Amino acid sequence: GRPKKEFRAEAIARLAHVTHLNGTAVTDEERSAAERSLIRAHTIDLEIKNEPTDLAVAEAPDQLDSLLAKHGRLDALAKVDLRPTQSVSLVLRYGNQSRTCQLATNQLIREVKQKVCDQFNVEPSRVGLYYIDQGMVGAMGPELLNLPGRAFHSYRPEDVVQKVNPMLTEERAKASFPVEELTYILDGGKFNTEKRREIEELVTKDPNFEHPPIQFMTREQQYSLAVKKALLVQQRLKELDMLDDPYASYFFRRIAMPREVSPIGLHWVMFVPTLMGQCSDEQRERWLQRALNYEIIGTYAQTEMGHGTFLRGIETTATYDPSSQQFVLHSPTTTSIKWWPGGLGKTCNYAVVVAQLHTQGRCHGVHMFLVQLRDESTHRSLPGVVCGDIGPKMGYHTIDNGFLQLNSVRIPRENMLMRNAEVQPDGTYIRRVSNEKLTYGTMVFVRSLIVSDAARGISEAATIAVRYACVRRQGEPSSPGAPEPRLLDYPVHQYRLLTCVANCYGLWFASEVLRDLYFTVQPDVLEGRTERLPETHALSAGLKAVGSNRGAACVEECRRCCGGFGFSEASGLPKIYNDINPACTYEGENTVMLLQTGRHLLKCVERARRGEQLAPSDAYIRSRPTPQPKLAGGPLTADLLLGWLRWRSLSMLLEVSGRFNSFIEQRQAWADAFQAVSRRLTRCAEAHCILYVGQAFLDSAKAAENPKICGVLTSLCRLFLLNEVVSGAGDVQLSRSDLARCQDAIDSLLTELRPNAVALVEAFDLPDRMLCSVIGRYDGQVYEAMLQWARQSPLNATDVHESYELYTRQFLAGRSLAKLAYFH
Amino acid sequence: GRPKKEFRAEAIARLAHVTHLNGTAVTDEERSAAERSLIRAHTIDLEIKNEPTDLAVAEAPDQLDSLLAKHGRLDALAKVDLRPTQSVSLVLRYGNQSRTCQLATNQLIREVKQKVCDQFNVEPSRVGLYYIDQGMVGAMGPELLNLPGRAFHSYRPEDVVQKVNPMLTEERAKASFPVEELTYILDGGKFNTEKRREIEELVTKDPNFEHPPIQFMTREQQYSLAVKKALLVQQRLKELDMLDDPYASYFFRRIAMPREVSPIGLHWVMFVPTLMGQCSDEQRERWLQRALNYEIIGTYAQTEMGHGTFLRGIETTATYDPSSQQFVLHSPTTTSIKWWPGGLGKTCNYAVVVAQLHTQGRCHGVHMFLVQLRDESTHRSLPGVVCGDIGPKMGYHTIDNGFLQLNSVRIPRENMLMRNAEVQPDGTYIRRVSNEKLTYGTMVFVRSLIVSDAARGISEAATIAVRYACVRRQGEPSSPGAPEPRLLDYPVHQYRLLTCVANCYGLWFASEVLRDLYFTVQPDVLEGRTERLPETHALSAGLKAVGSNRGAACVEECRRCCGGFGFSEASGLPKIYNDINPACTYEGENTVMLLQTGRHLLKCVERARRGEQLAPSDAYIRSRPTPQPKLAGGPLTADLLLGWLRWRSLSMLLEVSGRFNSFIEQRQAWADAFQAVSRRLTRCAEAHCILYVGQAFLDSAKAAENPKICGVLTSLCRLFLLNEVVSGAGDVQLSRSDLARCQDAIDSLLTELRPNAVALVEAFDLPDRMLCSVIGRYDGQVYEAMLQWARQSPLNATDVHESYELYTRQFLAGRSLAKLAYFH
Repeated sequence: GRPKKEFRAEAIARLAHVTHLNGTAVTDEERSAAERSLIRAHTIDLEIKNEPTDLAVAEAPDQLDSLLAKHGRLDALAKVDLRPTQSVSLVLRYGNQSRTCQLATNQLIREVKQKVCDQFNVEPSRVGLYYIDQGMVGAMGPELLNLPGRAFHSYRPEDVVQKVNPMLTEERAKASFPVEELTYILDGGKFNTEKRREIEELVTKDPNFEHPPIQFMTREQQYSLAVKKALLVQQRLKELDMLDDPYASYFFRRIAMPREVSPIGLHWVMFVPTLMGQCSDEQRERWLQRALNYEIIGTYAQTEMGHGTFLRGIETTATYDPSSQQFVLHSPTTTSIKWWPGGLGKTCNYAVVVAQLHTQGRCHGVHMFLVQLRDESTHRSLPGVVCGDIGPKMGYHTIDNGFLQLNSVRIPRENMLMRNAEVQPDGTYIRRVSNEKLTYGTMVFVRSLIVSDAARGISEAATIAVRYACVRRQGEPSSPGAPEPRLLDYPVHQYRLLTCVANCYGLWFASEVLRDLYFTVQPDVLEGRTERLPETHALSAGLKAVGSNRGAACVEECRRCCGGFGFSEASGLPKIYNDINPACTYEGENTVMLLQTGRHLLKCVERARRGEQLAPSDAYIRSRPTPQPKLAGGPLTADLLLGWLRWRSLSMLLEVSGRFNSFIEQRQAWADAFQAVSRRLTRCAEAHCILYVGQAFLDSAKAAENPKICGVLTSLCRLFLLNEVVSGAGDVQLSRSDLARCQDAIDSLLTELRPNAVALVEAFDLPDRMLCSVIGRYDGQVYEAMLQWARQSPLNATDVHESYELYTRQFLAGRSLAKLAYFH
Repeated sequence: GRPKKEFRAEAIARLAHVTHLNGTAVTDEERSAAERSLIRAHTIDLEIKNEPTDLAVAEAPDQLDSLLAKHGRLDALAKVDLRPTQSVSLVLRYGNQSRTCQLATNQLIREVKQKVCDQFNVEPSRVGLYYIDQGMVGAMGPELLNLPGRAFHSYRPEDVVQKVNPMLTEERAKASFPVEELTYILDGGKFNTEKRREIEELVTKDPNFEHPPIQFMTREQQYSLAVKKALLVQQRLKELDMLDDPYASYFFRRIAMPREVSPIGLHWVMFVPTLMGQCSDEQRERWLQRALNYEIIGTYAQTEMGHGTFLRGIETTATYDPSSQQFVLHSPTTTSIKWWPGGLGKTCNYAVVVAQLHTQGRCHGVHMFLVQLRDESTHRSLPGVVCGDIGPKMGYHTIDNGFLQLNSVRIPRENMLMRNAEVQPDGTYIRRVSNEKLTYGTMVFVRSLIVSDAARGISEAATIAVRYACVRRQGEPSSPGAPEPRLLDYPVHQYRLLTCVANCYGLWFASEVLRDLYFTVQPDVLEGRTERLPETHALSAGLKAVGSNRGAACVEECRRCCGGFGFSEASGLPKIYNDINPACTYEGENTVMLLQTGRHLLKCVERARRGEQLAPSDAYIRSRPTPQPKLAGGPLTADLLLGWLRWRSLSMLLEVSGRFNSFIEQRQAWADAFQAVSRRLTRCAEAHCILYVGQAFLDSAKAAENPKICGVLTSLCRLFLLNEVVSGAGDVQLSRSDLARCQDAIDSLLTELRPNAVALVEAFDLPDRMLCSVIGRYDGQVYEAMLQWARQSPLNATDVHESYELYTRQFLAGRSLAKLAYFH
């Protein structure tokens, strides 16, 4: 409840003619104070809102106008105007000329510069734009606005007067290659880079995407914000006519919602594609256009509380009732409750539900059904539908992963998705021939995205950690009075960071090769030529596991490299870890994925024995061992190292396969023999995938036209390969002298690569808006930004926290806490 | 603001004689409704509170009594009584006898049973206590209350009618050893186990420690709750006269605040000990008793934003002003702002501040000063003191790690802690002789606690993951129609979990040996015999690093073993990870720690060369290599494996030391040579520490009197050692045949240990209240509990989330979102 005093004041202000309240006379003074307080409360409410909403207007009391007439408009007692300045007025002087110029703040520094120069017909490239802070100019001098891609409105005095940290400038100057060109390679061409930057500008300039840091929000606020932004993104993409451009819409989403998983993501990732693939033609007509227009929002509900990878274990039933020509959808047990689908809890009003189809007393296995969950006009959940959010998780705070319990919910017969099977009005079940292998293709594509997302995750974490390592000083100075060394000066730190960078590039290129493989193989599959499917499937499963495992491990390594600050949400690193981490589990748990690859590899050995031909990436597999390539003697080239890793992979595989065969010869069941070697088989699968990553990395390095870029990428690739050789040395008895040579080579590479450390991460071209990191900022001004960030912590809203009044005061006074409220 | 309608109703109810409001007549009906609503709002408010607080009484409107007289007491429209039932009335029948019995709910099932039996003079062990749910008895039958240690009030019908999951009961029956006896060993004796359980009972029975799951709270709520609970713990410990019993108070805190870091923790961990150690006798008299009585709450402020491990780099200054006889404490730069100290942000009113002492124009290095931060009666921060919370982190949500900027804050001369140095009134600086090595002792003790905490973290995660692996079915059934296999049926899963369990036991025993070493060495140090200090220091540094690294890695592995549910906060696992993880960074970053151990090992080789004697744990270090122990031939006993690991450690160390010496011979500076081998030296330090862990594990296993316990611990120790041999095979060229033998031995051990998996984790005897895990519950009823938990998610407070009204409705209707409020 509100304090009585406040209530009394509001009553007096609203009731102009009350002279006594609760028996106490209302003095003129009291009335005046109350009325002025009411004016303030409401007029200031309106002022600080960016645009008055209908809601705000509706709240204003009827008496406001008459009170305003009496007292006039009042200033707030403490006026805090949070509106961004929309435009500024400048006086420009050039020689004898002088112009006044009004400039909108929602443009980039580059554009401001252009407009200023247009006034006097001068060439922008010959002009420097300086900011002069009246208070600071004496101490700091005028400051060059040297970030042309930054929004004008985002400059605040404290940003401008701070130069880019000279320690970072110094590191940037050390790059041995043109960073911009490497960016083009990573983006797949200059055209893509420019397009991506244009899109990033669109979002940067749009104030609708500005908001306070989400680390200070509750989960519910984060969800609400994510709904708003996800819908806004969709609307903007439509306005910009970019909906059909996957590249553009991917980058638009990514920069508008950096690492904020979209609550409507499953609508376009699973719901729409499922309707496309599984609907009969009439069904497509009825539902697909509505889904594409976002008249309805859907999700895909397959996983149940008790059932994940084993699809046939699904318990939800869809029983056909011919009398009403309806299906009855039902969750018979707790374990059958749908669990995890994104957007299912609160956001969606429809779902494709996977259920066991029962008709005419028989079960025909799992099929898909379109089920309406919520009323289209009120959004209330429909009778029999119990759905909600599954509660907070380690990450993914912005999405309402949901549960769904169906209590005999009836849907029309026509809501079964009938492309591949049909239930006729009388209940007769008809199955059509279908190409089930088609779905494998989608799976391969999704997995290539997971590998690429792992690489992107490392690129973000490594950019933050490498920049921080350049500006953070820590430890004993080399001589008394000298500054403390930078983190990047320590060889151990170089090793930790640069191996992460190497993994990042390796996975980046491998994901591209895998995606290309998909685009090569998919047309064949559509025409029924499925020879390369097993290879593609096995590779994508294993790379998904290796990629997400490495991704999580490298991000965590980068996080720990930032010491205490890496533990603060300010660094942005905990969020990257928590958002990349679930990829180890979803779309196939990683151990299960590695065993799928392992099973394929066992088959390859068998086929090699029979003299059959193997697919390109499996072609090195033979049925007999080959001699170990010598690492001694000549230089440790990337090709030599790759050859050794290839030998290692084959060598491990033959050992496991021999063991497996001996179990089979001892008349063990296939499944038991497989389980008996499973632990070692996962290692084989990893070795096989690492080989593929190394090959992709080396091929991409060699393909670079610029010799400087080719050089630095080849060195980074060698670091990647050497690190794999050293960590895999125990699998196949690498000699101690070879190991020592590899370790020496790693030491040399660290020294060689260190000057390019910043350049290698900045080639990923990640804007501050994407990194959301106080310690990974482009300008390297870590400490000032950290203080500014911390001040916004909700605990700092008041000097004395309410827990003091509630508990601490009495405790310090020696009074018992026993009578305290249950929980505040 | 509140809706106008509500305001009007409250105004009418409070103003008995108002007939018109804002020009509209007040009808009798409207008045009656308004008055009844006011009665409901206030009387129900009081009812649902556990005990009416002064605040609640003060809020009741003056008119309430007269309104109650008019309308009488009203029922709530929807009555939701959240008060726990304080007592229940039972009718007991025994033969022909019948008794009515009133039972308080705040007792344990064991006690209830005793009281019921006392009524009829029967022996409790011969009686089974059943719960009969009237609605469920037909379906489920009466249910045995078979958890004697559980609080009576914590039983709800849905708990009682569910049996313990038979899959878990079955696994429990497989134990080959008496679990209870292993618990005694882990606790350090039966006496300790019983004492711990008594303490856990005290907390379990106390309703003041009950609250909703903290995963649903905002960080501010979590902080507020932690303040309340931390103060309550302190108060209860005082009432129970347990403050001077470290064992009792440790377990009391642990069970009352499971994994909730205390906001006043630094008061007794750092503030009080620092006052004890650094104050002169007069200063102790003035401050220590106040601190011990909790009249003041303090923290220890050393770390600065820009300065961590290098203590001399501290920038905060304390300049003596003889004219006022005061020190002026000042933060001259942003990097000098104190950052991280626990409780500094909001909770504490005093701090020991570490600063550079300046007097008579000279700097005398860092000293400690007692600085008052907040007013003792209002808790407002004092002039010149800028302090606050540093913002949200990856974990540790319950504690206000803080910052402190001092703007020329003056403190009396007497507030410098003067045991070891003094500034006299005229500014003369006097340094006293002190035994600085003493502080090493405390460091060793704190590090042994970190190792033990890592083991405890794994024990929690492993208990959850092993229980879940017994009840979770996943994957292809072995035959059609059979149930899906349990996770624990998969060898890969057994390997993942059992190696975590093995690491847990290893670290558990190693932390005890390290703590015992501290207690052996510390008395010597106090008497000036410091021979064993270097060994102790090096061991504690390395074990801190290895322990916290392994702790974090094993907890994360257990978390991933739980698939999707491990990502849900319901599992409790994300919290364990996030709270154990910072130990890799605080009290010395792990890489820095390993290098300290490495430096000591290099010195040991040098001393061995000179023929000097080495400390016991270093005694295996020689200046020349020894032959590799053969793993082929006989059985792979623990002693043999340990011998191999000892050889590996020496072998690696000699290689690195040889390299280091060759740099020195090439006239490199010591520091440069050290950096050049640093990367490899960290591996040597790890190998040395693992050896120590293995030895501690094996010694403890052999010390078990019960041969069954000795057997299972020895097998687990062998799994630990074999896993280390296999993962370290590459360091020293283990032959492929030896490797294969070790792998076979691991396979056999997994089969051997699997029946004891549950018993080995349940020996840690962790109550559900400690685990806070829906999927790790003792009763194994995972799915029902998960649904019940998820329903409490704040997003489920309403069926339709507010974001629908704010954004989605308009979006679905095709209307633009552009005019929406800035951010809701």
